[in-house]
Amino acid sequence: MQKRYLLTPGPTPVPTEALLAMAKPIIHHRTSEFRAILKEAVEGLRYVFQTKNDVFVFASSGTGAMESSITNILSPGDKAIVVRGGKFGERFSEICDAYGVVPVNIDVEWGKAVDPSAIKKALDDNKDVKAVYTTLCETSTGVVNDIKAIGDVVSKTEAVLVVDAISGLGSVELKSDGWKVDIVIGGSQKGLMIPPGLAFVSVSQKALKLADTAKLPRYYFCYKAAKKSADKDDTPWTPAVSLIIALVESLKIIRDDSLEGVLARHKRMADAVKAAASALGLELLAPDAPSDAVTAIRLPDNIDGVALVKTMRDTYGVSVAGGQAKLKGKIIRVATMGFMTQWDVIVAISCLEIVLKQMGHKFELGTGVKAAEEVFA
Amino acid sequence: MQKRYLLTPGPTPVPTEALLAMAKPIIHHRTSEFRAILKEAVEGLRYVFQTKNDVFVFASSGTGAMESSITNILSPGDKAIVVRGGKFGERFSEICDAYGVVPVNIDVEWGKAVDPSAIKKALDDNKDVKAVYTTLCETSTGVVNDIKAIGDVVSKTEAVLVVDAISGLGSVELKSDGWKVDIVIGGSQKGLMIPPGLAFVSVSQKALKLADTAKLPRYYFCYKAAKKSADKDDTPWTPAVSLIIALVESLKIIRDDSLEGVLARHKRMADAVKAAASALGLELLAPDAPSDAVTAIRLPDNIDGVALVKTMRDTYGVSVAGGQAKLKGKIIRVATMGFMTQWDVIVAISCLEIVLKQMGHKFELGTGVKAAEEVFA
Repeated sequence: MQKRYLLTPGPTPVPTEALLAMAKPIIHHRTSEFRAILKEAVEGLRYVFQTKNDVFVFASSGTGAMESSITNILSPGDKAIVVRGGKFGERFSEICDAYGVVPVNIDVEWGKAVDPSAIKKALDDNKDVKAVYTTLCETSTGVVNDIKAIGDVVSKTEAVLVVDAISGLGSVELKSDGWKVDIVIGGSQKGLMIPPGLAFVSVSQKALKLADTAKLPRYYFCYKAAKKSADKDDTPWTPAVSLIIALVESLKIIRDDSLEGVLARHKRMADAVKAAASALGLELLAPDAPSDAVTAIRLPDNIDGVALVKTMRDTYGVSVAGGQAKLKGKIIRVATMGFMTQWDVIVAISCLEIVLKQMGHKFELGTGVKAAEEVFA
Repeated sequence: MQKRYLLTPGPTPVPTEALLAMAKPIIHHRTSEFRAILKEAVEGLRYVFQTKNDVFVFASSGTGAMESSITNILSPGDKAIVVRGGKFGERFSEICDAYGVVPVNIDVEWGKAVDPSAIKKALDDNKDVKAVYTTLCETSTGVVNDIKAIGDVVSKTEAVLVVDAISGLGSVELKSDGWKVDIVIGGSQKGLMIPPGLAFVSVSQKALKLADTAKLPRYYFCYKAAKKSADKDDTPWTPAVSLIIALVESLKIIRDDSLEGVLARHKRMADAVKAAASALGLELLAPDAPSDAVTAIRLPDNIDGVALVKTMRDTYGVSVAGGQAKLKGKIIRVATMGFMTQWDVIVAISCLEIVLKQMGHKFELGTGVKAAEEVFA
């Protein structure tokens, strides 16, 4: 028997209510029954996105919605500022390349947040920039960017602000409208607590207007088609019915706790992980701008991060993430995201302690858990 | 209490084994556990597609995979033959327009199959055509096209043959390799018996090679990225984990029955629907090329098809589809697709009889069911 604990930055655990909703007999999507479900889902998404804008639901992973945020508002040869401070920032730049958009890349050291003044400078230096692409929570590093400050900068220009909030949404604060973000991208398998397979975009009027003149080709991810259908609580193509039904359940849970309550829970959990890491003599990758959704912890040189993650998962049933790309083997990432509580955090830290001890790291067992308990108490 | 019977051409009923598989705790996708599941799914898909080619799994609806079959093999200004004999054939033409491909449209009367010699003529007249796009089973009309004959024609040229088999796959015969089809597109919510949200493409070496030079932009639906990951039983972006786990269950059911057995069951069910329609004095929309996946039945002028479908569904719990676009109100479409048996067909015909009688159609109650029973007996 092995009981599993999932503390990865997507997929995150799915509440039983949402799992069982997917086990109900499938229904047809072109019915008033399903339109009411979609409407409820979109209203719940607006609450989490903190927006009055349209929110479109795609059957795709988050990457598809990232692509949509480029193809629907830009034309070939357009310039866009892209903040590259991790794997997912880089993805925006790759999509620009694939579509003939000229990225003005702002490279940020992995583990650091982007300085909003660097975006201001790039906008000043490139008056013809049409859009700015950045990340709320960079999953690969655990950094949270200061979207409020970036929104202040970008909204003073003609450019549109696009935020990949796939990892952060529902875990860390993001006031889409209050912070003047034109396009916010979300995914299903993170703070929204359902399996992967849905992506969301909230789109401002300003961004929607650009879709009228943007010349990049698109069809499946077309905002104009999505908007036309959304106005009738419908989708242009067959939606992922069962995932949307599950989403309604998870959104109910978020509403019952209130977004404020949900965000406070995430902060407590992330604070506990940080305190535990420190107590265990480990450094954070992103001490200056740590996200409440995922915490990246540096490992000592003598600890193989790949083996650590594998032992925690395969021997003990506790899944955390390792490092990606240039951070492979050097960090672990503990997600505190979605359907998790303080007890999941206690389990993860306890398991980390036991495996670190086996691997030769010097510390007193229980030290990390004690520090976490002090946060929770 | 209302017990539901779903005989729509997607979504189709999902077997309980597949529904419950989705209700199991979510697992992470970058694990050997999930790679083994994906591998099993792809092997099962190859069996149903009757191909040795790569089969890629996208988190999207079928339309996304249709788009991929254009963007991955063509360049702006390329010519492609598109068979338009219904709503889904038209979609290929729309995607061509969106991406700057020049469609050579072969317009076919709704309810008729395309004449393979018309494709031959179009190929002869347009030596520079790069690809031919057609549909196995046109869901909007219930027509099945003669893909074997079309494959014979197209394979004698340099052009690539692309078949939208979203509705037909697993319901009517399609020998992807035997009939020389380069790209076959499938969806999850039809003959494959799971909810919507996954799309599949099988891609021949010839088509994959075109991806090296094709200049249309793509990222999310990129075959080269998909191929690189598929070689490691992986996906480039986060896959729709729970739907893939459900797919493994439905593919087991197909394998247990054997593809031959599954196709024979579909043929018996469709034959019964046709016999019943005829016994009730109703004509088929596609008498010359009727598919075994969905049967379109013309309604007499005095019967409102929209009201008929609504009453069957809302009053009696039996869902069939109405007509789309120019056929709205004029036909009903009874799917015999996926997780359905002869008893579902008996229920649908019996319900159709009762509502037709209420709406004033002249016939003797039980006539349709009798004709269906004669097929099944």
